[in-house]
Amino acid sequence: MKTTHLQGLIAAPFTPFDSNGQLDCSRIPEYYSFLKRNKVTGAFINGSTGEGVSLTLEEKKAMAQAWADCSNHDEDFKVMVFLGGTCINDCIDLAKHAYEIGLYAVSLTAPFYFKPANVEMLAQACIMVGESVPNMPLYYYHIPVLTGVNFPMFDLIQALDGQLDNFAGIKYTHEDFMDFQSCMSYKDGKYDMLWGRDENMLSALVLGAKGAVGSTFNYAAPLYYDLIASFESNNLPKARQLQQKSINMIRLLGKYGGISVGKAYMKVAGLDLGDFRLPVKNMNASQFEAFQKDVQSLDFKSFKSN
Amino acid sequence: MKTTHLQGLIAAPFTPFDSNGQLDCSRIPEYYSFLKRNKVTGAFINGSTGEGVSLTLEEKKAMAQAWADCSNHDEDFKVMVFLGGTCINDCIDLAKHAYEIGLYAVSLTAPFYFKPANVEMLAQACIMVGESVPNMPLYYYHIPVLTGVNFPMFDLIQALDGQLDNFAGIKYTHEDFMDFQSCMSYKDGKYDMLWGRDENMLSALVLGAKGAVGSTFNYAAPLYYDLIASFESNNLPKARQLQQKSINMIRLLGKYGGISVGKAYMKVAGLDLGDFRLPVKNMNASQFEAFQKDVQSLDFKSFKSN
Amino acid sequence: MKTTHLQGLIAAPFTPFDSNGQLDCSRIPEYYSFLKRNKVTGAFINGSTGEGVSLTLEEKKAMAQAWADCSNHDEDFKVMVFLGGTCINDCIDLAKHAYEIGLYAVSLTAPFYFKPANVEMLAQACIMVGESVPNMPLYYYHIPVLTGVNFPMFDLIQALDGQLDNFAGIKYTHEDFMDFQSCMSYKDGKYDMLWGRDENMLSALVLGAKGAVGSTFNYAAPLYYDLIASFESNNLPKARQLQQKSINMIRLLGKYGGISVGKAYMKVAGLDLGDFRLPVKNMNASQFEAFQKDVQSLDFKSFKSN
Amino acid sequence: MKTTHLQGLIAAPFTPFDSNGQLDCSRIPEYYSFLKRNKVTGAFINGSTGEGVSLTLEEKKAMAQAWADCSNHDEDFKVMVFLGGTCINDCIDLAKHAYEIGLYAVSLTAPFYFKPANVEMLAQACIMVGESVPNMPLYYYHIPVLTGVNFPMFDLIQALDGQLDNFAGIKYTHEDFMDFQSCMSYKDGKYDMLWGRDENMLSALVLGAKGAVGSTFNYAAPLYYDLIASFESNNLPKARQLQQKSINMIRLLGKYGGISVGKAYMKVAGLDLGDFRLPVKNMNASQFEAFQKDVQSLDFKSFKSN
Repeated sequence: MKTTHLQGLIAAPFTPFDSNGQLDCSRIPEYYSFLKRNKVTGAFINGSTGEGVSLTLEEKKAMAQAWADCSNHDEDFKVMVFLGGTCINDCIDLAKHAYEIGLYAVSLTAPFYFKPANVEMLAQACIMVGESVPNMPLYYYHIPVLTGVNFPMFDLIQALDGQLDNFAGIKYTHEDFMDFQSCMSYKDGKYDMLWGRDENMLSALVLGAKGAVGSTFNYAAPLYYDLIASFESNNLPKARQLQQKSINMIRLLGKYGGISVGKAYMKVAGLDLGDFRLPVKNMNASQFEAFQKDVQSLDFKSFKSN
Repeated sequence: MKTTHLQGLIAAPFTPFDSNGQLDCSRIPEYYSFLKRNKVTGAFINGSTGEGVSLTLEEKKAMAQAWADCSNHDEDFKVMVFLGGTCINDCIDLAKHAYEIGLYAVSLTAPFYFKPANVEMLAQACIMVGESVPNMPLYYYHIPVLTGVNFPMFDLIQALDGQLDNFAGIKYTHEDFMDFQSCMSYKDGKYDMLWGRDENMLSALVLGAKGAVGSTFNYAAPLYYDLIASFESNNLPKARQLQQKSINMIRLLGKYGGISVGKAYMKVAGLDLGDFRLPVKNMNASQFEAFQKDVQSLDFKSFKSN
Repeated sequence: MKTTHLQGLIAAPFTPFDSNGQLDCSRIPEYYSFLKRNKVTGAFINGSTGEGVSLTLEEKKAMAQAWADCSNHDEDFKVMVFLGGTCINDCIDLAKHAYEIGLYAVSLTAPFYFKPANVEMLAQACIMVGESVPNMPLYYYHIPVLTGVNFPMFDLIQALDGQLDNFAGIKYTHEDFMDFQSCMSYKDGKYDMLWGRDENMLSALVLGAKGAVGSTFNYAAPLYYDLIASFESNNLPKARQLQQKSINMIRLLGKYGGISVGKAYMKVAGLDLGDFRLPVKNMNASQFEAFQKDVQSLDFKSFKSN
Repeated sequence: MKTTHLQGLIAAPFTPFDSNGQLDCSRIPEYYSFLKRNKVTGAFINGSTGEGVSLTLEEKKAMAQAWADCSNHDEDFKVMVFLGGTCINDCIDLAKHAYEIGLYAVSLTAPFYFKPANVEMLAQACIMVGESVPNMPLYYYHIPVLTGVNFPMFDLIQALDGQLDNFAGIKYTHEDFMDFQSCMSYKDGKYDMLWGRDENMLSALVLGAKGAVGSTFNYAAPLYYDLIASFESNNLPKARQLQQKSINMIRLLGKYGGISVGKAYMKVAGLDLGDFRLPVKNMNASQFEAFQKDVQSLDFKSFKSN
């Protein structure tokens, strides 16, 4: 099949839970509208930010259905669903479901309990899943900091090229710019390379990146669109200033406990999506208060979504 | 609840697949008899050796049911089932199922995609799962080489003690003997510490270990019972010689590709259980031939199960 | 003291050995001229590329003297000498020697046997060495892949700012662009941030980097000056193409055995500086022949030094 | 040359510094007598505990000379000197010096800045150093937690056997008991395997270890001799109890900041040897007070040296 290259900012949505920690699909239409108002061009659901690994198979399907219901009519908003990677049978089940309900694409990562011994075994896993949905683009999700699997993606592309027609590209969440650029250059840009490190976006734009998938696009897409526009108009001092703002925002994730801080940013931005599930730690009330003060000092309202 | 300490060798069974890679539960009665003939005292199913992470939820339950069906009448054969760890809701579902069908115990490991930030978060995950089956012993499964989570178990025991009545102990698959011994000593041996590194068993026996869970007990239990008897009769030269035989046997796993070599040993021992699923690599025919020659030179038949 | 910001390409020279593996200082004048012809603006000597850790104290001093002898008259060529890091007393000895013979600056890395427990201990080590040469710029050399010490440099800068007047900046050989940019932004660019990953230079230029230290500038400085000029004239397609050429060249280091391949490139460029010392592996004759063919296919002569 | 197997406890001495951080060789005779009173059978000087990497070449030689001066007449006390590993020329210089002044043996570790690419390169480094002192036993010092080099020692032994006559064995400071036992078994115990993890000694004794090198033998040798005697008389409950005491003692190193806590133990035992050099952190006065209280609760005086 012929795949296309995505453009712009694709948010990796959080998964909404109610106060009992149960999945709350009823929040998705509101969430979708929120992203649309901020010109987000798509969603990468059930991924790391979306706590896919903490959802049951049925919950993952329910979430996929909820996003399909409110966005399937919208040509300008592409939904891609993360399949996991460790249990290949589950990945195939989820991929077929995604195809049936009309989502745009699927994405799998490396098996992260038994790590593949070499890139060839990883390619076999991709092929087995990809062949189950031959008419749907499949992206590999490269995130070694979480999977512990860190082959050069340049090697994976060479192992898959010609072997899996619906292999579309890579969501690249890693800092190996030499590898990233080599993938971009491969066969004149045949594969779609989506940048996945919001804090380094400028360093990827200069290499030619056109699309990005990230968690901070949930609540700060305008900041990044400004950054992109500044870069494209060759106003580098402004682009650097905006990237530094993004870094300062992201630094608070480290300060307040990691990935769950994203949901706290969403709360500040006006969308309360509940807590993260175990084993992720959430802020308590007094930490949230301190966090809010830090957020104010960032001048967050000037670049946040609304 | 009051939990007991297990004794002897608990095998971690392989999961039987047919030639299409489909689960084949019909092999379990034969497998159970095979283990019984070799005096194995229990089974740790759906674990690493059992490829639990590569099975769907339904497959895990089917495997649990198959083992329950053939061993529930047998007081001298305890079946413990691995629950995973990454998705807590799945763990609870599987734990309740195990309880309903009458298995002996359950075991969970650390979430291995989002790693717990500290031992307290890990303890919370254990408590959440453990409380769902309050009348069933729960073992923590410590295997940092696969999970990437490596807190001292001495800290986890202190975090759980008094917080989870059915916490029974730890399947300890790691080489930190300082930590292992400290856990053994805790409150005069309150917790059941099951050794999980077959190649180092002698170094655990001297510290007082009484039970062990391992993959090589599937095909070489007699060797280890000899080792234990030699140790207990203070015949250390013989115990060392037997441990070295075990090491030589285990070294072939490294030589021929890792965990899947265990199923090749089973084939040599007379029980063909199929291949490992992706991403694990299996031997091809010529590798298997070379492997068989190496096995002969080990004098395998003298210590293998039959 | 007031320190300045360096500009352009600073080569990290190889250390010349004769056929018996003995230091050969007589090659330095020729080496210096070679670099000058290629518009290199300075040298970072006795560093990783220069095998500083494999040299004795006397050899390090001899090498420093040889570079001083031929470049001290040259305002446009700055020599900075690497001090090591593990033995603080040696670092101080070497720093004082560098000052006495008139070199431009010194650089130390983190102690890499006993790693500092926190950034504060690392800062103390920097201060102890820096205070021994108060009138000489001191750069920290950040290369976690070799030292195993990976604190954010943003934290080190904050720990040193106001505590060590001659702290001038960081040679940054790592891929953490978020950290690198934060250091660049600190107090409006107070500290001199020298980029140390040749294969990613374009991603650092876009963040505002003006100076770089690298091993491939020894033999391919013209390529990088072209890259910089293309970037500065906003010809990004050409800049990317040149960066990809640099990557292809650097990929051969991986293919032929690592750091010692740099001396093979020098041989092709016309300067035979001998082999690397143990434990580094050097190519044998047939490997060198294969390497030379690969080099030809890179169109090396178009961007190499001469 | 024919080498022998060492027996008993070999202390890894601390290096005495005065209050200005200068080497104080005058303390060695007193230190030597202290160790002799505690039946220590030798010293491994300038190693990790001895801060060899923080000493200049001249300081290392002065320390070696000081130990030679007071122990060369003593057949029952063997001094082995650590050479480092990163700079091969320095290792050779130190080895020749050790031979000239009459020390018993030398020991080198893996180069830890440029790590050897494979075991063959490591063996070449060992051979180059070993051949410089052909009439002196050479031990490899395996301590991957500090060097970052972790080849199986079973492979190194095979690479060196028959290639270096004075290769005597390995100081093994790692927890890979499978590898350790394989080395012990090699050619019926041809090589001398010295155990280097005091907290796990019992698990090594059961495998047949006869000699050990450790830092806690400086201040608690009687405890370990009791442990060995209990093991040898097959009183395992007592042996375990003593090993647990050793663990409790060692746990305070973690609690109070690592390797420098050993010098604090020495102070409590009556021998003040000064502080550790940078980058190692030393306790402040109030920490030392808290430490002393913890030491009392260990019943330290019952097993300490005196």
